This record gives sequence, structure tokens and C-alpha cells, in this order.
Amino acid sequence: MLKRLLRLFAVLALLLAPAAAMADGLVDNVNGMTLDEKGDVVRFNGILFNREGQITALLTREHKRPKKLEWKLDMGGKTLLPGMIDGHGHVMGLGAQLLLLDLSATTSLDEALAKIKAYADANPTKWIIGRGWNQETWKLGRFPTAAELDRAVSDRPAWLQRVDGHAAWANSRALQVAGVTAATKDPAGGRIERDAKGAPSGVFVDGATALIDKFVPRQTPRERNAAFLAAQDRLLSLGITATADMGTSVDDWLTYRRMADMGQLRIRIMSYASGVETALAVAGQGPTPWLYGDKLRMGGIKLYADGALGSRGAWLKAEYSDAPGQKGLGFLTDDQLLNMMTRGAMDGFQIAVHAIGDRANQQVLDAVEVLSDTYKDDRRWRIEHAQIVDPKDLPRFAKLGVIASMQPVHQTSDMKMAEARLGPDRLAGAYAWKTMLRDGTRIAFGSDYPVESPDPWAGWAVAFTRTDANGQPFGGWRIEEAVTREQGWAGFTTGAAWAGFAEKQIGRLAPGMRADFIIVDRDPLLASPADLRGTQVLETWVGGARVFVKK
Amino acid sequence: MLKRLLRLFAVLALLLAPAAAMADGLVDNVNGMTLDEKGDVVRFNGILFNREGQITALLTREHKRPKKLEWKLDMGGKTLLPGMIDGHGHVMGLGAQLLLLDLSATTSLDEALAKIKAYADANPTKWIIGRGWNQETWKLGRFPTAAELDRAVSDRPAWLQRVDGHAAWANSRALQVAGVTAATKDPAGGRIERDAKGAPSGVFVDGATALIDKFVPRQTPRERNAAFLAAQDRLLSLGITATADMGTSVDDWLTYRRMADMGQLRIRIMSYASGVETALAVAGQGPTPWLYGDKLRMGGIKLYADGALGSRGAWLKAEYSDAPGQKGLGFLTDDQLLNMMTRGAMDGFQIAVHAIGDRANQQVLDAVEVLSDTYKDDRRWRIEHAQIVDPKDLPRFAKLGVIASMQPVHQTSDMKMAEARLGPDRLAGAYAWKTMLRDGTRIAFGSDYPVESPDPWAGWAVAFTRTDANGQPFGGWRIEEAVTREQGWAGFTTGAAWAGFAEKQIGRLAPGMRADFIIVDRDPLLASPADLRGTQVLETWVGGARVFVKK
Repeated sequence: MLKRLLRLFAVLALLLAPAAAMADGLVDNVNGMTLDEKGDVVRFNGILFNREGQITALLTREHKRPKKLEWKLDMGGKTLLPGMIDGHGHVMGLGAQLLLLDLSATTSLDEALAKIKAYADANPTKWIIGRGWNQETWKLGRFPTAAELDRAVSDRPAWLQRVDGHAAWANSRALQVAGVTAATKDPAGGRIERDAKGAPSGVFVDGATALIDKFVPRQTPRERNAAFLAAQDRLLSLGITATADMGTSVDDWLTYRRMADMGQLRIRIMSYASGVETALAVAGQGPTPWLYGDKLRMGGIKLYADGALGSRGAWLKAEYSDAPGQKGLGFLTDDQLLNMMTRGAMDGFQIAVHAIGDRANQQVLDAVEVLSDTYKDDRRWRIEHAQIVDPKDLPRFAKLGVIASMQPVHQTSDMKMAEARLGPDRLAGAYAWKTMLRDGTRIAFGSDYPVESPDPWAGWAVAFTRTDANGQPFGGWRIEEAVTREQGWAGFTTGAAWAGFAEKQIGRLAPGMRADFIIVDRDPLLASPADLRGTQVLETWVGGARVFVKK
Repeated sequence: MLKRLLRLFAVLALLLAPAAAMADGLVDNVNGMTLDEKGDVVRFNGILFNREGQITALLTREHKRPKKLEWKLDMGGKTLLPGMIDGHGHVMGLGAQLLLLDLSATTSLDEALAKIKAYADANPTKWIIGRGWNQETWKLGRFPTAAELDRAVSDRPAWLQRVDGHAAWANSRALQVAGVTAATKDPAGGRIERDAKGAPSGVFVDGATALIDKFVPRQTPRERNAAFLAAQDRLLSLGITATADMGTSVDDWLTYRRMADMGQLRIRIMSYASGVETALAVAGQGPTPWLYGDKLRMGGIKLYADGALGSRGAWLKAEYSDAPGQKGLGFLTDDQLLNMMTRGAMDGFQIAVHAIGDRANQQVLDAVEVLSDTYKDDRRWRIEHAQIVDPKDLPRFAKLGVIASMQPVHQTSDMKMAEARLGPDRLAGAYAWKTMLRDGTRIAFGSDYPVESPDPWAGWAVAFTRTDANGQPFGGWRIEEAVTREQGWAGFTTGAAWAGFAEKQIGRLAPGMRADFIIVDRDPLLASPADLRGTQVLETWVGGARVFVKK
């Protein structure tokens, strides 16, 4: 009888135990690895997490497995890593690329025109919208023209963004609809490419794209929902469990919320509002809380100091080597930039400023220097891209606590162009990852998708090799700026999390952190660079839920 | 031993019972009353609800109280009612009224000008913004002029909405800033009041208000947050636990979400988007789910068929008695209205159309008749206000399943004006509540705050008396259209809930419904009409949480 009573009490005790502890699940028999807070590799063989999707323990082979488990999965020794984080992407832009006309794989103008024509024939839309062209890849040596685009589509307006999003190409019908003529002046912060007679030749750079943009039919909610889901699926399939969204519009935000409200938001989004007005309209007096179980937060504001190298919109201290007389475009005066940053910082928003040229990077650093007198708390100012930095300015990142948010693949995509644009003498501070780290600068890595592929494995491989998918150039481009394999990994995990004020939730695996992890088909710490690029993601888990399984 | 064992099993059983049941709280010793689904009064003395804020039982004195309770409150016999629901209000408009210059209590032009001047002297804002004036209350017999407003404020633009929101009054500075001159044409669906020479005299009606509106500085998020909180506090203090928000803008929606994300949304909002575009931008492919535990949902779209009686914007079948030649303004052609309603209905949005004049009501009913061929499911088409209806059209509401969303206090505020505008022969279908009910029309009552006070007790009293706060006119205005006290109550509870597709959650007290209730200082079923108007709300509870206590 006493025995029975004792047994009853045992049952009782079990029932009274915290529900969370009872509901732990175990993913076991894995080759598990993660970085810790110091950047050291930690290894484990089992990961235990609760119903709320929080890790309760990492187990090695030696640890006893809990007897009471809600469920258990044996992974047969496969490699388990923390989910990858993209420190700089454009979620809805990726969705648009996946659903709309995508020219990013075209290697010549003729190939692009053929693809545009085929798309136009197949899609009876009012406008032909697409993106991804690159006159550099086409080896065209100049921008394409409206007359050329007319050969592919002339019955409707066509409007095609350049791969970097900093220029776009219109056909004659689009020019006509927008009423852009030789008499139209270049708007502030933008440039209309013109022919010898001064007539618009078809390409619009930076601020000038708004002249056509405002006539493009607005996406329907159905299109936006579909674009979001396509982007999310793509990111999860690559092992990305969280991403910064650099330049969220009100429409983007409403799409994310709509999806989340319907239980369709599976990836984590660290949202940076497109400009101050958007941040105030959406988040109001300051960053939003983390919403939907740490899935969505608008914490910052994205601003632009200049354009891109490809379209010679990056703002340089000295003239472009391949375009004498041009120094690119500074989007804002010093006062304007300072005012915008102040306006955002006043309300506690994190400020992330796009700066590619050395002059633009200097402008942002100067602004942070001024702001640092006022804001002495943990602000995590970010410079996005930080591609071409005057070596004199490099140490200022660490000194001012400015995060360098960089995209390794940009280096391999841009290396030849950068040499042409800048000449050999101005490359000392270009894509200077190692120097940054040595100075003590915090680094976040990302891809700038859809400008580049969101594939983080390519990015990681570039980080420690400085070579492209073909292993070129042999030995790596300015290899002295390569980081270690682990530092590269950190850029795509702990670094990107820290840059998004999310280091307490994601970026590494440890008790109390969110169970965001991936199962991959190889060991990334042992794989050759080529093998690392070929990594296949078998499963992706976010917050303890399996959200992607490779078919 | 067996006894002990049995006792143990009992404890065990208790522990195994659903957590919700364990956590029940009891508000006891109340004079409780609610309507049931059929409109009959149900009485009780205790209300039991769980942690999720759902009612688990209504108890009479005879019922045994559960032994295990999380907590218990003794109300000392006070009256407990379901929370009141306002079927038609403007949350952010009320907030603006509470925070901005409010002219609704002024009884003469001179008094208003003095109040405007005092406000302008005290508030160094760029614009003077206010609302609430009514030339009828002032007994002015005409609209006020810009020149008159200049006497109160001339150094800055001033822009003051009429009480019904269908007209606004500018000073000369505002006309100048907006560049409105004698040469400016009346926009479609709007009218610029003009002097003898054709120059704008200061008042803009309906669609014409946009000419000035677009120059008004946008509210800051801080102002919007503050306005929301002020409105919410006011509504809760009056015993309103849920409200329709008729014409939610994207900015309004972002404000509600921001507040909800921070745990500050305490009232329930049934949101109707301001137009089709807003619905698509916010909710996308269809109504949002109920969010934040049934606190917020965008389920419908608000459209406008005409203006208001006061500004002679209501669209009549025959001329205004007091303005020969004028029939008011139809905002949309039949095709436009039908297209908009179809566009919304296609995606499952509920359609609520503002229609005050008999011609406008006919237009909406005609449109619903066409749409009913396509949409045979439960659509709950709504006509907002339905003030002046051709008696021939009255039965069409019930026949077509159109909800009449009406505001009792409008009847007492407008009765003299309605007589002047329409003459005695066209009042048979005016504010025809009883006839509507007799026909089988579903009715929702509300206040149209801030056009009227949101006070539901005044509205309820008017519903069965058709007299104003002074008991005038003696015996009630067209008393044959008064409803019963219980029918009036239903309009502000079950009727308003049904009209908002919320009848499964709110509007009455019963197991499974949300615990939205109020404690009041008198019995509304026994109080004289004057006493009912004086009802003091002592406590307001939403979802089982006490959100207002009278100090």
C-alpha cells in the first residue's frame, strides 16, 4: 500500500513539474558545433529544447539523456549548426526577383533582350517589371539604351532595375508615360543618362529612378504575399533562419504582419525602416518590441549616404579612375545626414547608413563622431557595405563603435570593377575585413540579396579565401584581408545577431537561446572552400520548429 | 487508507483538470443582467471566468460556488451588465477631439472665436487645428467665413472641422498656403463655399476639404499615441468595451498595432478600412484574423455614398426644403459604388456604406440588390446612418439583409434641422428604428463619436424616448419610431456585435463569451430616462481584466 502511495506521489510530483521542462524535445546523435560568446567553437551531440522553442541544454555523448521527453529525433551523426543570419538583405526585393523577370544570369545584352521578349510575350501585364541586369557582366562598357530595350518590348512600358538597385532601365514607352524628355532636369541625388543631344537615353541612376517609379502600378496584396513566401522559402532552404531587412517600407511591414498574423512568418526579420518617416509611421516613438516570439522587430532605420560602384554612384574622395571628372553622388549634405541620424537616434532607433565610397564612409563616420557626444549608450551605429574606405578612416570604425556590415561576395563580384573604378592605389582600404577585425571593429556579414545570391555558404567561403566560385584569382584577391574560417562564420552568426541587437536570442546555440539550427550534409569547418560552397541544407529549424526539409 | 487514497485521487483529478478551470475567478454578489440570443433578459448574481478571459458560467444565488477559485470579488449587490458596444465611431477622431481645439460646446460664433483665440495664444503650433463647430447650434443661419476666423487667428493657418466631419473652415492664411482662389474649381464630390464674387468664403464641403487637408502637417507618432490613449480612456470610462472604427487609415491601423504590441490596447476595435486601397494595403487578401485575443480585426471597408444633412451634403431624391435647387451630393456614380463594393466583397471584406439622404440610401440598396446575385453567403452589408430613407425603400433593408447602423442621438441633435431641410412630408422614413425592426431589419446602434458624444447611456435613453437631455420634445419626436428599452439595449450590445461579425465573442454574457462587462451605479432597466442618462460606470472589464475603475 505504501508503495502504491509513493508511486502516486511520484505521479503527482511529475504532474506538478513545470510544463516547459516536461515538454522538452531532443535532437540527438548530431555532429553539433556552434561558436560561443568569445568566438570559440563548442561541440556537442544533442540539443534539448522546450515547447517555447528555447534551448534548455546542449549535451555531449557523456551526458545522460533525460528519461522524460516529449519526443526525440536521431540525426544519424549529421552536422548541426546554428542557423545562418544574413546581416543585410531585402526580403521583398528577393521575392520580387523570384517572381518577376530576373536578368541576373544573363551574360550579354542580346541574351537579356531575348529573355525580356520571351517574358513579355508570356506575361500580359500592364508593365514589364524586372531586375538583375549588369552592363559589366555583359561587357558592354556602357549603359544599355531605351532604343535597345524597345527591340524586346515596345507595346508597354518596361522598367528594369540594375542588379544593385541603384539604377534602372526604361524603354521609350516608359519614358513617354512618365513624360521624361530632354527638358527634364536631373533631380537632386540622381542622374538621367543622356545621349549626345541631351535626350534621356534610358537609364536612370539613384534618385532619378523615382521619375519612373511613381508611374509603376502598385503591387497587389496577393502579389506581395506571394513574393514574401517565395523569399522566405528560398532563405530557409539555404539555412538562413534570420535576416536583416534593410529598408522596410510601410507596405513591406504590413505584409510581414499579415503573414505573421496568419501563422506564415517562419523566418526572423530584423527590420530597418526605409527612412525616418517610415520608422515613425510604423514603430512610432521607438523600436517595436520583438513580436511573434522574437520573429519580427523594427529596431532601426536605413539611410543612404551614396550610390553604388557599378553605376559610379559611390561617392569618392578623388575622381573615378575610369571616369575623370566624376566623383559619384553624395545623397545628402553633412547637415541633412546628421539631422536624419539625430531624428532617428532621438527616439532610440538604431541607425544603419549605406556608404560604399570612401567619401561617403567618411561622411557617416564624421556624423557618428558628432552624435557620440550626445548618445553615449549602446547605439551600435552601422555602416552598410563599407566597401571603399580611406585607410586613414579604417580605425575610426572601432574607435566610434561603428559596426561594419559587409558582404563578402561583393568582393569577388566587384574586384575587377573596383580595380577599374579606383586604380591600384586606392584599394588598401577596400573590403578590408581583416584590418577591421584587427582594429576591434564589430563585423556583420550578409549577402545584400537580391543584389547577390542569398547563399551564405558562398559568402562564408569568400570570407576566408577571397576567391570566387572558380577559385579565382589564385591565392585570393588581396588575401591579406581574408579572415579565418571561424571569423567568417561568426560574421554570419554571432556578428550579424549582435549587429541586430539580437545576440541574446540568436546567432549561437546555448541554453536560453532560441532553438534556431540547421542540419547540413557536411562539416563546414573541415570542408574545402569548393565543398563549403556546395553545402546542402537538409533541415532548417526556427524556434524549435522544423520549417524546411530538403526533398 | 482507502479514504486517503480516494482523497489523493481527488487531488490528482483536480490537478489534471484543464488549467483554465483551475484558474477561474469569480465576480460575485452582483445584480447581473444580460440579453440572450433571442433578446430576452437573463439575470444572474455571479460571473465566473477563466484566465483567458472567457466566461465559464453565470451563477444565480442558488448555484453552489466552486471551492477552488483563483480569486473572488464581492460587488456588494451592484449592477453588472455586458460592456456596451458602439456600432459606429471614429477612435482617432475622438482622440483628436480630446487633445485638439474642441468647439463642440460653443453656442455662438463669438464664443467660438474667443475660444479659438485663447487656444491659439496658448499653443505655439504651426497650424491651429480643431473641430466641433456647428453653425446650426450657433443659430448663424449660414456658414462662417475666413474673414471671421481671421479675427481669432491670422498669423498662422487655421483649419477647423465641422462637427459632422463633412465640412471644414479655413482662415485666409490657410487659403493662401493651399493656393485656393476664385479660380479654383470645385473638385468632384466636393464644394467650395464662395462669396458673391465667387471667391472662396472659407468653408469647404466634403471632397473639397482635401484641398486644404493635404497641407496640414502630419501628426507625429507621439501625438497619435496620445490621441489613441485619450480616446480609449474616454470610451472605457463610459462603459464601452468594443467599438467599430469606421474609416481606419493605414496610420490609424499602425497606431492600434503599436499600442497593442506594447500591451496598451485594452478596448476591442472592429476596424473598417477607409476605402478599398487601405483594406488591401493593410489586410491584403481578406479580413485579418482577430488579433491580440479578439481585440483587433480589420474585417470591412467603409465607403461614402453622400455627405451630411447639416452641410446639405446628404443626397436627397427631391430638393432641400430650405435650399431650393439643391439636392446634395452623391459622391459616386452607381457604377463607381458598385465597382468599389464588388472589389471589397470579392476578397471577403464586409462593406459598410455611409448613406444619409434618401437618394443615397436608395443607391446603396440598389447596389446590394445587384451584388446579392453574386454573393449569397453571410455578407452583412451595412448602411451607416440610414437617416432619411424613402418609406418605399425601408422594407428593402430586411429583404436584402442590410444592417441599419444608426445613432439614436443624431435624431435628437438633428430633429429641428431635419424638419427644416426636408419639410414635414418627408419625415416618415427618418430615423425609422421601429419600422426597421418590425420589418425584420438588423439594427446596430452607436454614437458616431466624435460627431456626437460617445456616451452610450444618452443613446440608449433616446432609443426608447426620442427626447433630448431636456426631455424635449414632450412625448418624443415621432414617438411611433421609438423602440423598447430592451431593443435599445440590444442595439448597443448584441446588435452592434452582430453587425461586426463578433456575436460569438461579445455583446452578451454567457459561457464561452469574452468576459467584457461593466459595473454601474444603477439598474438601467428600472431607471427613468433622465436617470439612465446619468448612469455612472464604476468599473469596466475587458476579457476578464479590469481596465477602468472610477475614482
